[in-house]
Amino acid sequence: MSKKLTSRAEDYSKWYNELVVKADLAENSAVRGCMVIKPYGYAIWEKMQAELDRMFKETGHKNAYFPLFVPKSLFEAEEKNAEGFAKECAVVTHYRLQNDPDNQGKLRVDPEAKLEEELVVRPTSEAIIWNTYKGWIQSYRDLPILVNQWANVVRWEMRTRLFLRTAEFLWQEGHTAHETREEAVKEAELMNNVYANFAENFMAIPVVKGLKTESERFAGAVETYCIEALMQDGKALQAGTSHFLGQNFAKAFDVKFTSKEGKLDYVWATSWGVSTRLMGALIMTHSDDNGLVLPPNLAPNQVVIVPIYKSEAQLEDVSKIAHLIMADLKAKGISVTFDDRTTHRPGAKFAQHELQGVPLRIAIGPKDLENGTVELARRDTLTKEVVPLDSLTPRIEVLMDEIQRALYKKALDYRDSHITEVNTFDEFKQTLETKGGFISAHWDGTPETENKIKELTKATIRCVPLDVASTPGVCVYTGKPSNGRVLFAKAY
Amino acid sequence: MSKKLTSRAEDYSKWYNELVVKADLAENSAVRGCMVIKPYGYAIWEKMQAELDRMFKETGHKNAYFPLFVPKSLFEAEEKNAEGFAKECAVVTHYRLQNDPDNQGKLRVDPEAKLEEELVVRPTSEAIIWNTYKGWIQSYRDLPILVNQWANVVRWEMRTRLFLRTAEFLWQEGHTAHETREEAVKEAELMNNVYANFAENFMAIPVVKGLKTESERFAGAVETYCIEALMQDGKALQAGTSHFLGQNFAKAFDVKFTSKEGKLDYVWATSWGVSTRLMGALIMTHSDDNGLVLPPNLAPNQVVIVPIYKSEAQLEDVSKIAHLIMADLKAKGISVTFDDRTTHRPGAKFAQHELQGVPLRIAIGPKDLENGTVELARRDTLTKEVVPLDSLTPRIEVLMDEIQRALYKKALDYRDSHITEVNTFDEFKQTLETKGGFISAHWDGTPETENKIKELTKATIRCVPLDVASTPGVCVYTGKPSNGRVLFAKAY
Repeated sequence: MSKKLTSRAEDYSKWYNELVVKADLAENSAVRGCMVIKPYGYAIWEKMQAELDRMFKETGHKNAYFPLFVPKSLFEAEEKNAEGFAKECAVVTHYRLQNDPDNQGKLRVDPEAKLEEELVVRPTSEAIIWNTYKGWIQSYRDLPILVNQWANVVRWEMRTRLFLRTAEFLWQEGHTAHETREEAVKEAELMNNVYANFAENFMAIPVVKGLKTESERFAGAVETYCIEALMQDGKALQAGTSHFLGQNFAKAFDVKFTSKEGKLDYVWATSWGVSTRLMGALIMTHSDDNGLVLPPNLAPNQVVIVPIYKSEAQLEDVSKIAHLIMADLKAKGISVTFDDRTTHRPGAKFAQHELQGVPLRIAIGPKDLENGTVELARRDTLTKEVVPLDSLTPRIEVLMDEIQRALYKKALDYRDSHITEVNTFDEFKQTLETKGGFISAHWDGTPETENKIKELTKATIRCVPLDVASTPGVCVYTGKPSNGRVLFAKAY
Repeated sequence: MSKKLTSRAEDYSKWYNELVVKADLAENSAVRGCMVIKPYGYAIWEKMQAELDRMFKETGHKNAYFPLFVPKSLFEAEEKNAEGFAKECAVVTHYRLQNDPDNQGKLRVDPEAKLEEELVVRPTSEAIIWNTYKGWIQSYRDLPILVNQWANVVRWEMRTRLFLRTAEFLWQEGHTAHETREEAVKEAELMNNVYANFAENFMAIPVVKGLKTESERFAGAVETYCIEALMQDGKALQAGTSHFLGQNFAKAFDVKFTSKEGKLDYVWATSWGVSTRLMGALIMTHSDDNGLVLPPNLAPNQVVIVPIYKSEAQLEDVSKIAHLIMADLKAKGISVTFDDRTTHRPGAKFAQHELQGVPLRIAIGPKDLENGTVELARRDTLTKEVVPLDSLTPRIEVLMDEIQRALYKKALDYRDSHITEVNTFDEFKQTLETKGGFISAHWDGTPETENKIKELTKATIRCVPLDVASTPGVCVYTGKPSNGRVLFAKAY
C-alpha cells in the first residue's frame, strides 16, 4: 500500500480517511459503522484519557460504572431524551443462540430466549444512572454526587466516518446531582471550561465556548454548553458538550431530596461528555499532506531516533549514542524510541514517523559520530537543524514547548482569520461558499429562521458565544431584531 | 440501614453480599444480572487496572479497541468457541425503537428496523479480533502482535452475584499472534505468571498456577493456564486464565503468514484475561466480620485521619496537625484523607472506615494535642498504638509494608493449611465436607471420572498444578493409574 496521501487541496475528505488508516490510527471493522482503534491510535486516546481523568479528579469527580443496557421502560421515562435517541439505538431482544435446524453448522436466535423486556444498548446513560441515583439520594447530605464514567456507547448512525461518527464510540460521561439550580449551572459551566482548557492547552486546539440553540440542544437538556473547534477545511466540529439538565431526569425518575430546611424537592442535574471524536478534531486541526502532526502532549513517542549506517560496526556506534540520548531524555520525562529495525531503510522510517506525526526525529549517521552532532527534524515545520550532542536534551526540551505552542498559535490564527462578521444574507452565503469558517451574524432567535438558513445553506448555528459581549442588531435573514451575533458554520 | 454485617460463621454468602453493598463497592441494577460499580469499588478496580496495565506494557503489549458487537457469521466461525458461548449471549436484532401505537407514551421495537444479520454482544473477542488480524498479518514481519483491550463483555448467566458472576462485567483481554507454537505457548505461560505475580505481590492473594483439564478449558483453547485462589470459606476461585489457542482461530478465520523461509502457515494464538471478578477474590480473601480489609497497594485511601473534638477551637488545632501529617505522608507517596465531616460523629466514622477497609486510621484528640501524639489503628489486626508525631510518617511507611506482607502471609497460611492430600474417596468426601479447601488427589485422567466426582461431590478439578513434580499413583475414585495429583475443590 502506498504511504503517500491524497492532498488536502485535492480531496480533504479522502485525505482524512487515508490518513486515519495509513497512520495506523483506526480502521473499519466487520460491524457496520463500528471501528477498530489500532494500538497507535489508542495510545493517543490513552493520553487524552489520562489528562482528562486527572482534570476530572482535580475538580472533585470520581469514576464509577453503570450497566451497558437500559431496559426499555427506563429508556422511555424521560420523553425528550427517549425521542432523541429512539431512532438510532441498538436493541437486544434475545439472550441465546441455538443450532439452526435449517442450516447445519450455523446458529440462529433461539425464539424461546426472548427477553421479557427489550434492552437498549446505552446511547447515553442518563436514564440508567438517574434510576440508580434514586436509591442514593435521600437528603442534602447525599449531595452533590459528582460521578464520571468511561464507557462505550452505541448510536446507530446511518452515515459513519472513522472517529467522527461511528455506531459505537468510546467516551466519558459525567453525571452530577445537586441541591440547587445555581450549583448545577455552575457545574455545567465548570466542566465546559475544563473541556476548553483541555482542548486548548493539551490538544492545542482553540475552541469557542458557547451555548447551543434549542434545536441543537441535547435531548432532555435545559441548556447545552459546548466547545466548537474549526477544522482546516473551514468546517466546525463540536468537540465537547456539557448539559444543564434542570430537574428533567429527577422528575422522570422521581428523585427527590430533603433540603437543610426540611423541604422536599427534585434534584438538579448535569451531564457532560467528550468522546473519541476528539481524535478526529486532533487530526483535522494539525495534520498536513505528509500525515499526522501531533502536539507533544499527545504524542505516544515524542522523539524517535533513526540510525544511519552502512556497517554493523557503525550501527553499534550509533546505538551507543542513541542509548545515551534516550537515558537523558527519559530522565527529563520525554518519551523516546530507537527505531533500529533492520527490516526498513532510513527513508522508509522517516516517511513512517512523519506519517505518524512524531514531533521530533533524530538522525545519527557516521558523520554525526565524527562531529559529535545529530540531525534534528521537526515534524510540524518540516525543518532540520544540526545539534551538538551536549546541547541536545536542553534543545529538545525547548522544542517540546515551542512545538506545542506553535501548533496552537497556527490553529488559532487560522481560526481567528476564519470568523467573518456578515450583515447581509448574500454576504453570508458568499462567505460560506468561498471561505467557510465561522460566520458571525445576527439571528432573530427563532427555530424557524435557524431551520430556513440551514435548509438554504447547510450551515447551522454552532453556538451563541459566551465570551463576547452581545450587541443588538437585525437578523441577517429576516431583518427582525436580534439580541446578538451567533456563530454559524457547516459542521461535522 | 444497619452497618453491622452478618458474620462469616453465621452465613458466609450473606456476609459477602452485605459487605459488597454496605462498603459501597457495588449494587445490583435495574438490568437483570448487571451491576453498578460504585465510586469506592471502582477506585479499587482502577488501582488493579493501573498496575496490570503497567505490567502488560512492561512485557511489550499495547492496548487497542475492537467492536462491542460480533456479527453472527463471525461468532459461529470457530465452532467450539461458538458452542461454548451461544447459550448465554445477548443478541441485538433491531436498530430502532418507535412510538407504540397500542400504548401511548411507550416505545416498541420498530419491526422495519430489523438487522440483516444479528449482532452478538461480545462474550469474549477472539472472533472479532481474529477477523481483524486477518487484515494485519501477511508475513513474519507482522508478528508477533501483542495487543490487549480493556472492555466490557456480556455473558447471560442465569445465577448472578455481585463481582463474582454478572451478566456484564469489565475485564481485559489480551490477544496475541505468533509465528510458532513455542512462542505462543511461552506467551500464554508468561501472562499466567504475570497474573500470579499480580495476585500475590499486589493483591496479597496466594494462587496456585496450573493447567485446566479438558472439560474446564476455555471453549476454543488447546490449553488453558490458570491461577486458582482459595477463599475463606474453603471454596476455590479462578482468578485469571491464559489460553494457548493453537491455530484454531487462525484456521477459522483463515489467517496465514509467510515465514522467513517463505512457507505459508497458520498463525499461532493466545488470549488471556482477568476481570472485575478479582474484586470478589479480594473481598473474600482478606475481609472480616467488621467489613473490608484492603492491602495497602489496593486501598484508594491508605490512611484516614479522624479528628476528635468538642469545640470549634479544638477542631482547628487538630486540623492544623492533620494538614501537616497529610503533607508529610503525600510527600512519601502515601494517600491520606482528612475526614472532617461535621455531619458524623467519630464513632460512626471509625465504623465506616473499618467497613471500607482503610488500612490505617489516625485519631487525633485534645489529649494527643497536649502530648504531641496520635492514635494509630490498624485495620487488619484491629490493634491500636500511640505514636509520637515526629515518628509518625516513618512508622506508617513501615506499617504499609508490614500490612501488605501480613495479609499475604495470613492468606498463604490459610491456603497452605487447606491443601489436603487424600488417597481414598471416603477421605475425599469427608475432607470436602468438614474442611473444604483444595484436595490433592490422584485422578485417572478421564473426563468420565472427573464428571462422576463432580456429580457426587460438587467438587471440580481446579487445576493440574504446574509448580509441583508429579508422581504416579492410582485414581482416588476408580483405582486406575494416575500420572500425578490434581487439585479438586468446590468453586465459585
